[in-house]
Amino acid sequence: MRESQFPGAWAPPYARPVFHLTGRMLIALAAAMLLPVGIDALTGNPNWRAFLIGSVITCACGAGLTHVTRCRLSGGLTLRQAFLLTPVAWTTIALFGAIPPYISDYAQLRDSFTNAFFESVSGLTTTGATVIVGLDDAPHGILLWRALLQWLGGIGIIGVAIAILPALGVGGMQLFRTESSDRSEKVMPRAREIATGIVLIYVALTMVCGAAYWLVAMTPFEALAHALTTVSTAGFSTSDASMARWNNAALHWIATLFMLSGAVPFVLYLRLFQGQQDALRDSQVWFLVSLLAVMIVAVATWLVVAGGHSAADALRLASFNVVSVVTTTGYATADYTLWGNLMVGLFFGLMFVGGCTGSTTGGMKVFRFQVMIRMLQSQFLRLLYPRGVFPRVYAGRLLPDDVIGSVVVFFTLYFVCYSALTLALMAADLDFLTSASGAVAALSNVGPGLGPIIGPTGNFATLPEASKWLLCFGMLLGRLELFTVLILFFPQFWRG
Amino acid sequence: MRESQFPGAWAPPYARPVFHLTGRMLIALAAAMLLPVGIDALTGNPNWRAFLIGSVITCACGAGLTHVTRCRLSGGLTLRQAFLLTPVAWTTIALFGAIPPYISDYAQLRDSFTNAFFESVSGLTTTGATVIVGLDDAPHGILLWRALLQWLGGIGIIGVAIAILPALGVGGMQLFRTESSDRSEKVMPRAREIATGIVLIYVALTMVCGAAYWLVAMTPFEALAHALTTVSTAGFSTSDASMARWNNAALHWIATLFMLSGAVPFVLYLRLFQGQQDALRDSQVWFLVSLLAVMIVAVATWLVVAGGHSAADALRLASFNVVSVVTTTGYATADYTLWGNLMVGLFFGLMFVGGCTGSTTGGMKVFRFQVMIRMLQSQFLRLLYPRGVFPRVYAGRLLPDDVIGSVVVFFTLYFVCYSALTLALMAADLDFLTSASGAVAALSNVGPGLGPIIGPTGNFATLPEASKWLLCFGMLLGRLELFTVLILFFPQFWRG
Ligand SMILES: [K+]
Ligand SMILES: [K+]
Repeated sequence: MRESQFPGAWAPPYARPVFHLTGRMLIALAAAMLLPVGIDALTGNPNWRAFLIGSVITCACGAGLTHVTRCRLSGGLTLRQAFLLTPVAWTTIALFGAIPPYISDYAQLRDSFTNAFFESVSGLTTTGATVIVGLDDAPHGILLWRALLQWLGGIGIIGVAIAILPALGVGGMQLFRTESSDRSEKVMPRAREIATGIVLIYVALTMVCGAAYWLVAMTPFEALAHALTTVSTAGFSTSDASMARWNNAALHWIATLFMLSGAVPFVLYLRLFQGQQDALRDSQVWFLVSLLAVMIVAVATWLVVAGGHSAADALRLASFNVVSVVTTTGYATADYTLWGNLMVGLFFGLMFVGGCTGSTTGGMKVFRFQVMIRMLQSQFLRLLYPRGVFPRVYAGRLLPDDVIGSVVVFFTLYFVCYSALTLALMAADLDFLTSASGAVAALSNVGPGLGPIIGPTGNFATLPEASKWLLCFGMLLGRLELFTVLILFFPQFWRG
Repeated sequence: MRESQFPGAWAPPYARPVFHLTGRMLIALAAAMLLPVGIDALTGNPNWRAFLIGSVITCACGAGLTHVTRCRLSGGLTLRQAFLLTPVAWTTIALFGAIPPYISDYAQLRDSFTNAFFESVSGLTTTGATVIVGLDDAPHGILLWRALLQWLGGIGIIGVAIAILPALGVGGMQLFRTESSDRSEKVMPRAREIATGIVLIYVALTMVCGAAYWLVAMTPFEALAHALTTVSTAGFSTSDASMARWNNAALHWIATLFMLSGAVPFVLYLRLFQGQQDALRDSQVWFLVSLLAVMIVAVATWLVVAGGHSAADALRLASFNVVSVVTTTGYATADYTLWGNLMVGLFFGLMFVGGCTGSTTGGMKVFRFQVMIRMLQSQFLRLLYPRGVFPRVYAGRLLPDDVIGSVVVFFTLYFVCYSALTLALMAADLDFLTSASGAVAALSNVGPGLGPIIGPTGNFATLPEASKWLLCFGMLLGRLELFTVLILFFPQFWRG
């Protein structure tokens, strides 16, 4: 039987595995929609119908797509297929994820597909920017669905960062190639045991986090919803006030801890379980922890000196909010935009950083900053000693030139995309602070921005329609580490 | 006679030629101070005494310094001496340039050394940010002195960009090495005939510009003061309203033309005079002109559509203000911050760009953007064809890896310095827009920033003391292309 006789012949042959995998993911998404069906049915909210219909539509589309594009996947994906898979899958899932809220009777989302899609993208990309006002009174199904999307997005991005990006060699991710992916041309869906292990750890962390929340302050439902969005460093809450809704120091410390747990490379947990003690000496983790420590001490000192807080309060506020921004979670226990201009500037800068690669965090990722620092050091030495040779070492290994090149390109593109998005938002008539902070909040998947409109106590509801679509694009672009999206705009990609 | 027997033995031997050259520049500066003496004496302003005293002090210090550090310069400078010369000379001249205003009886500057020094640095670095309110009534001597500092700074930076930076190999400037500097380890004060030619062209352009201003609208003094700050793309005016003081379309077009004339590499004029027609095909110039054309058309269209201007008015306003910002001159004929959020964002972005290297403009310089674009292109192609080889060509030549590396480091450092300066300004309690735009206005030597305080119709007078010193540092840092200043902070520089 020749290829063109397949029912999926409408798609170019190389795209078939991509659509096939996307179809499978839709079926999984449809299964996830049954959870909000359950909780709405339990709480007697008629919204369960919307989720059930959504689930049926999604499942049907997923099954149909899988069927018409059926093919063998045992050979893994080619480079081009891997490039295509990431944006196609992410966009498709976000579209289907928007169906239940859009067909629901929840006034905040049913009126506008823009709002439903924005919330869905913001969920799946673990951004956590919301257009909903009045979360405290929102139906449980909707709240659970948002949290679930973030949780799925969190584990999804770990998978992309481990299995796809290193093989593509984008943004210096070739540093994290494993032995097997190094040797082959194909992107291998390598090591199911690693995947299983990481999923188990993700589930376990979520459960422990939820239990702790519940023990300390929250109702079981609140605990579940927040656990789903803490470990995924995603940040949706069940209250407009976010974590400030609970005036409970223990709760805030627990959240700080689990946000941090989502910001380290998840393979580290596996290696620890396998008894590899040296996993703790991971260079990225130490850089992240040192950065956080310095920032927390600085902010806490400022809060004591300039804000008149007690030392314990200052330390808790500083830890929570610094960790929340750097891990790109986006929870808030306080409006740090009221802590003075210096703090506004500081938090603005921290929004770019992000956590470790292979974690659920967004942002530029700390290893890229480490690589850039090595590069700057050697370049300065070269200015002083033009004939010297200055090897650039990272985590005990020599940094290859192509890694440095990729990281540099990533930084450049990040600022290009950031500037373009900021400008586009200003063209949609948002003011400077809202645009400049909204662009990084989207691109780094942090969630809240700065300023009175979209700041930590604000909301994206009132933004003009056009700016919401721009932000959706920014969230996807940032979540997929730029290249996998931008490469689609190169004509060579479609020709080659 | 051994080295230590020289009277200049207090300075390390390698620094002696640096101080010697600085001393000579001070003597030239003292001579320049006689011009304001003359004009204040002519107009009967008692300020002539301040300039005369300043001139005597400067001349004495310069002569003394030259004497105690006397040495042979015929061998040229070593790398390290060249690195040291640029910041030492610039800072020293700015300090002495602040003396006459500080000891004058002009209330705006005599009260505070901060203000006098800020105005001097802003002059010498061709930035054009001012702390003076009421320029229209300021004494002629002060006005001429500010303009003269800018004019001297303009020709000074052309010299640095031609003679020093290429040999140091900072920020990709090694691209502009001439044959002789390529072969030698020493930084040669090469080709006095080139230097003479460029000075003559600079003088000629200034004279033609001044004559045109005078013919069209200005008094001889205004024409002189503005000609000195137009060709140097520096931007000090004799009126608080800047060029908007003259409601004369011809004047604005003349200014646009001469700002542009200061933004092209001055060696091009020499080559044109030598009959080299291909000088006109310079890659940088065409990139700059194309960029300006696109931006002017975009802004003019916006002004017609959204602002209701006539086409001729829109074209004039757009041309003048776009050219003023991109060439980092900083004149204004209108408050473009009132043209809507999109225009604010656009002008903010344009402040980073700058003109060609080897011109009087500040900013990052267009050739660096060209190099970055080549790099991004080849990196994307490499993602698609991992085994391909993609030569990066600039101006018909293959770009060496070290040039690309240096340009990348320059971009990185520019944004690091920019972010640090913004944060520092916010720490000095300036708001976000003032800090973010003030930092780039200083670093790119544009002059005015954005927002109600330091915008095109605003003023730096009311800023807190600390922020003025930060901006002074930023202006020097940007003017000297970062490296020559930052390298002083490396302990290896002082050891080696
Ligand atoms: K987030
Ligand atoms: K300027």
